[in-house]
Amino acid sequence: MRTIFATAFLLITLCFAAFAADEWNTLDPKQVASGYKLEPVANGIWRLRFGTPEKFTPTAYLRSAPIAEKALSEMTAAPKMPWKAANIHAYKTARGTAIELPMTKDEQVYGMGNNIAFFNQTNRRSVIRASDMQPGPVGNQTSVAQEQNDAHAAVPFYVSNLGYGVFVDSARYLSFYAGNVAMVKPEPTPEAGSNELATDVETLYRPREIADKVMLIDIPGAVEGADIYIFAGPSMGEAIQRYNLFSGGGALPPLWGLGVAFRSKTQYTQEMALKLAKEFREDKMPCDMWGFEPGWHTKAYSCSYVWHPERFPNPAEMVKEMNAMGYRVNLWEHAFVNPLAPFYKEMIPWSGNYMVWGGLVPDFTTPEAKKIYLDYHKEVLINIGIEGFKIDECDNQPMSPKPWSFPEASRFPSGMDGEIMHAMFGQLTQKLFDEEYRKRNKRTLNQVRATHALASPLPFVVYSDMYKHEDYIRAIGKSGFCGTLWTPELRQAASAEDMIRRMQSLVFSALTQVDCWFLDHPPWFNFDRNQNNAGKRHPDSEMHQKVMRDLMNVRMTLVPYLYSAFMDYHYKGIPPFRAVVTDYPKDKETFNIDMQYFVGPSLMVAPVVAGQNSREIYLPEGEWFDFWTKKKYTGKQKIKVDVPLENIPVFVKSGALIPLAEPVQHITQDTCFDLTVHVFGKGDQPLVLYEDDGETFDYAKGQQGMLKLSWQNGQGFAAKSGTWTGSPRYKITSWQHWE
Amino acid sequence: MRTIFATAFLLITLCFAAFAADEWNTLDPKQVASGYKLEPVANGIWRLRFGTPEKFTPTAYLRSAPIAEKALSEMTAAPKMPWKAANIHAYKTARGTAIELPMTKDEQVYGMGNNIAFFNQTNRRSVIRASDMQPGPVGNQTSVAQEQNDAHAAVPFYVSNLGYGVFVDSARYLSFYAGNVAMVKPEPTPEAGSNELATDVETLYRPREIADKVMLIDIPGAVEGADIYIFAGPSMGEAIQRYNLFSGGGALPPLWGLGVAFRSKTQYTQEMALKLAKEFREDKMPCDMWGFEPGWHTKAYSCSYVWHPERFPNPAEMVKEMNAMGYRVNLWEHAFVNPLAPFYKEMIPWSGNYMVWGGLVPDFTTPEAKKIYLDYHKEVLINIGIEGFKIDECDNQPMSPKPWSFPEASRFPSGMDGEIMHAMFGQLTQKLFDEEYRKRNKRTLNQVRATHALASPLPFVVYSDMYKHEDYIRAIGKSGFCGTLWTPELRQAASAEDMIRRMQSLVFSALTQVDCWFLDHPPWFNFDRNQNNAGKRHPDSEMHQKVMRDLMNVRMTLVPYLYSAFMDYHYKGIPPFRAVVTDYPKDKETFNIDMQYFVGPSLMVAPVVAGQNSREIYLPEGEWFDFWTKKKYTGKQKIKVDVPLENIPVFVKSGALIPLAEPVQHITQDTCFDLTVHVFGKGDQPLVLYEDDGETFDYAKGQQGMLKLSWQNGQGFAAKSGTWTGSPRYKITSWQHWE
Repeated sequence: MRTIFATAFLLITLCFAAFAADEWNTLDPKQVASGYKLEPVANGIWRLRFGTPEKFTPTAYLRSAPIAEKALSEMTAAPKMPWKAANIHAYKTARGTAIELPMTKDEQVYGMGNNIAFFNQTNRRSVIRASDMQPGPVGNQTSVAQEQNDAHAAVPFYVSNLGYGVFVDSARYLSFYAGNVAMVKPEPTPEAGSNELATDVETLYRPREIADKVMLIDIPGAVEGADIYIFAGPSMGEAIQRYNLFSGGGALPPLWGLGVAFRSKTQYTQEMALKLAKEFREDKMPCDMWGFEPGWHTKAYSCSYVWHPERFPNPAEMVKEMNAMGYRVNLWEHAFVNPLAPFYKEMIPWSGNYMVWGGLVPDFTTPEAKKIYLDYHKEVLINIGIEGFKIDECDNQPMSPKPWSFPEASRFPSGMDGEIMHAMFGQLTQKLFDEEYRKRNKRTLNQVRATHALASPLPFVVYSDMYKHEDYIRAIGKSGFCGTLWTPELRQAASAEDMIRRMQSLVFSALTQVDCWFLDHPPWFNFDRNQNNAGKRHPDSEMHQKVMRDLMNVRMTLVPYLYSAFMDYHYKGIPPFRAVVTDYPKDKETFNIDMQYFVGPSLMVAPVVAGQNSREIYLPEGEWFDFWTKKKYTGKQKIKVDVPLENIPVFVKSGALIPLAEPVQHITQDTCFDLTVHVFGKGDQPLVLYEDDGETFDYAKGQQGMLKLSWQNGQGFAAKSGTWTGSPRYKITSWQHWE
Repeated sequence: MRTIFATAFLLITLCFAAFAADEWNTLDPKQVASGYKLEPVANGIWRLRFGTPEKFTPTAYLRSAPIAEKALSEMTAAPKMPWKAANIHAYKTARGTAIELPMTKDEQVYGMGNNIAFFNQTNRRSVIRASDMQPGPVGNQTSVAQEQNDAHAAVPFYVSNLGYGVFVDSARYLSFYAGNVAMVKPEPTPEAGSNELATDVETLYRPREIADKVMLIDIPGAVEGADIYIFAGPSMGEAIQRYNLFSGGGALPPLWGLGVAFRSKTQYTQEMALKLAKEFREDKMPCDMWGFEPGWHTKAYSCSYVWHPERFPNPAEMVKEMNAMGYRVNLWEHAFVNPLAPFYKEMIPWSGNYMVWGGLVPDFTTPEAKKIYLDYHKEVLINIGIEGFKIDECDNQPMSPKPWSFPEASRFPSGMDGEIMHAMFGQLTQKLFDEEYRKRNKRTLNQVRATHALASPLPFVVYSDMYKHEDYIRAIGKSGFCGTLWTPELRQAASAEDMIRRMQSLVFSALTQVDCWFLDHPPWFNFDRNQNNAGKRHPDSEMHQKVMRDLMNVRMTLVPYLYSAFMDYHYKGIPPFRAVVTDYPKDKETFNIDMQYFVGPSLMVAPVVAGQNSREIYLPEGEWFDFWTKKKYTGKQKIKVDVPLENIPVFVKSGALIPLAEPVQHITQDTCFDLTVHVFGKGDQPLVLYEDDGETFDYAKGQQGMLKLSWQNGQGFAAKSGTWTGSPRYKITSWQHWE
């Protein structure tokens, strides 16, 4: 399966091995230093155990799939540890466990969860902590939460551009100090600089250059010890792959999950939703998923899980009607159980000792809480055809003096404390639903506001209530460092330009969702929140609707390519959305690129935010084609391009084959995509398309076909293999070659 | 010793006993609930032990004086516990210890250290964490640090207006949730309010009213248990007294410590300082203490403790000359040991494993580190006549992604971790110097930027680099909640008005210090930093100097009154500076007063900040006199007063006797204060003045006299008692009665 991505890895591997050979040594499982134990886990993965880990760790409680050992065994054989084991140090204090790993002077590290505000984690302290990122009730604390590394996806995993990864198997509020702390030296080098006495705090307090760098991992609360896992590369991308395969591989959404999603307003009745859903079909607005808020959070902001009787007199009937129109129905909720929930009293003994918005916090590590919660959901919701959930509010406000969520000092029936529950709550809820849908042999795609480690197999996309477009773009690329997916949802907009620019980014993300939870009408009716809710149609609404429809159709053309990218995620752990540095970790120019990212093997997207008339784009080595104009560019240079509103800059790597489909309104089991295959440059990078029912797990039992697209001697080939017995998923109508 | 203050306590006691009798129960040492043990410690003090406390607690490592048992035994006998023991709950999780104490609906709590940004701690989470409060290198995080309760004086003690106090014997980053978390209830009251579904996060996330309040104390890291100490009142002021007496009583500064302090610029040479010191004497600017920066922190910002050889060619001679002019010399330093320090290598084994600004962090819990550090300081500094230190940088930047200080995960030779060292570092350094000066039978007054619990006996005044005048005023009153002292130092100013307003607050604070560490000339030369350092004299500098001189002289008139107030602190634990609510805890109007405070028994100060032309002042019940005009006011009302620049509003409680001295330039062992005693109203509140050498601890061996001022039948009396054999400290020249 030689995609261009795999080839890139290979090249990098060779460079790197030469570059850093003296830093590495062959794995010897008997190597022990500072009292820790190093054990191989799978090909290129080691566990470093120091003391005795805590009970409530991610590996013990958050795993949703077994280690993908077979896929791992097919990767580079016998890779090396990134450092000499003797250079690793660990120690315990009454506070917890500290682990010191070597770092080199110019090394760059990435990941540590998906904090949306900054990109590169080098030379700073990053705390791992789930947070809603909202300003608290007293003043504005967002920027500080962001600076501390608060995130919706708070994942204690990082990768180095030297080609390795480290996962800390802890759900604590742990910190990484990536090269910004200095260890004691008996013979320190005197600090360079003038003898002048400074009289300003900025100068006195300035961070100093540190000669012997170290990565200090501070795990408070892990007072008896902790495990970390070390992932070899040899490239950075392979280290990420190994982490995702260690997690069980990437989630495979149903085909319809790659279409367009829409969420209607909190106050919508079933008639209003059905009416709008019909209009979408009439207006040819592509849409596969429809989200509802069932109105079960009146008064207190905890949930009763009882449909609002006036707004939704017959939910089962409504779901049927939505399904008949080709929509998959998704429901908003969070797991804080209001006293009006039918199972409130039953849940009390299986909940934490503190409440959130007057609701219980169930301990989903207990079979009892899972059963009570899920039995009700199955009977009342899943059985009537609900195919997904939006799980809200499962993060926290760790920096707030008046946090809305439960205190870290809470205790839960399983013995878990509130700090760990904050890390795990979102993912435990995901697992609950994931297990149920798997039992039903139903793939699904959901949303969630907080996730933690080993999350890649879970079909949940992370979102935010923060709304800065730059942050949302940054988060798409960063999501690839931490085994999560991200959607830069569209809600209201500051201008038509802002709406269009946001939609463009959204098309090139894991979930193209227009979220109208506080809007009476879709944003193309009016992008302004107040005017929208006042029923004032924008004078250009028809034109806006057309632009949005066209963009949604762009998304629909990409579905086969995206499905292939998700298969690479699923089988090989390659993130379908990832930062540029992931593929070019030796190129200094990529170290801080946060406004460009890769989609699948060969598309590099460079979104634009409102107000930009041109933007700088870095093209790494090789040749690149403009996705829209097919103009060719030489790589290893920064280019400045004009960015007219109609197009988001997208570049195709030379050699790639990009199949584009005739857009459909929504995807069914029988959808057959009419494809034009665009061949760029030599076209020497084949692409595999996948055929299956697109909705179940039957592909894993053999019901899957492959269509390998390749280009040889000026001609396209589509070679079928596999065991798919259903009707064909793809029909190639033409090949177009661009040079 | 019936001061008016004591009488106020008595009145409050009676009110309160009636008010809350059913909330309290008689102490029964056998009362045990939830596995904790309750033990009496002293009169009105109980220790609640839950499990096994950590090794490095404040009581084990920060105590600088024994419990003042005798003074405690003289307070209200057999007071009661604030709650039924059965209503206290404690539990452990893997994270640490949690303790739940009852709270009532309208109860107000104060203290939890001296965060300078807000006053009342009710209905919020407050984290106890030493911090420099500076914005970090990445963006501005001050406000969030402040909202989280970061403080220079991070003290885990609070008082309730119901008349009790709680001290958590832990140096962890612990949190108090004062009534803003809700425990699980089987039969919750449905939330009131509309059924409308909100579509804005502010409404959804708003803090809810909590019916059954609780104070949750979260002590992470204390995984085996913790001690808390409970202090009875019956009044709020008495609870504070008990905490201070439990700490060993309040610090007694030398008499010269109540004068004026000045610090000259970092770049000053010994000639420049001596020249300016001479000018002060010629210009009749009162000054007792002079601070130097010896220039031992070039290049790196850690300290060599070696005088800068060019700037200070003969420090011993300089100190002698300063002493001859009547100045006490004080040196700036911090305890991060630069490689250029003569004892660097010797200190390595007794230091933490991480450095700060290239310097070692000594573990002052080890006798070795103490000895190495102190031996050098004694020989090179204290022996040449240095009488105090300014201990800088002993806090931290716990919220910063690039903190300048050592990581919380550091380990120290004693076994202490970095988190606890951050809490203790400042106070351990204080204790080091305090012990040495005590051995030398020398009282002193120093400055420090971080302190923790049980600090009241330490002669150190806390200061800040933050500079908002309102915050500095707030901190004066708040310092009385936590056994610390505070100086609102004057440095540069935004205007002449700002300079004068700041100086006015400074006169009514624990340490009247003008700090020119970054100014070439005193602020009256030019208050503007840039112009000052450019040598540009302000056109009105003479007038400004006169105003400042007059204000310094006001300070000097107050020295006998302040000395009496500090004796109340020392012997009875009554804070010399304290918030209004401390004395009127049942008066709702005082609950949030942060811009007024008491100085000694009878002066209520209401500072003014630049830009204010008038201000509101609340006069509690009783009658009050304007300190300057002697105009009488009726209490229990808010008044609005004009605030012309020449005066800071000060009110005297009717009944008080206020002795004012003829100002002197500086104070010596032989200074005899010429007093005018001002008698207000009935003059029925006697005041005791104290006579001793003012500089040593001989008073404790009997070398002390008392002069009790009283007013009877229109005549003043000064009754001598005690054993003072030195020359008289006071000469009463007149009595003035104001009605």
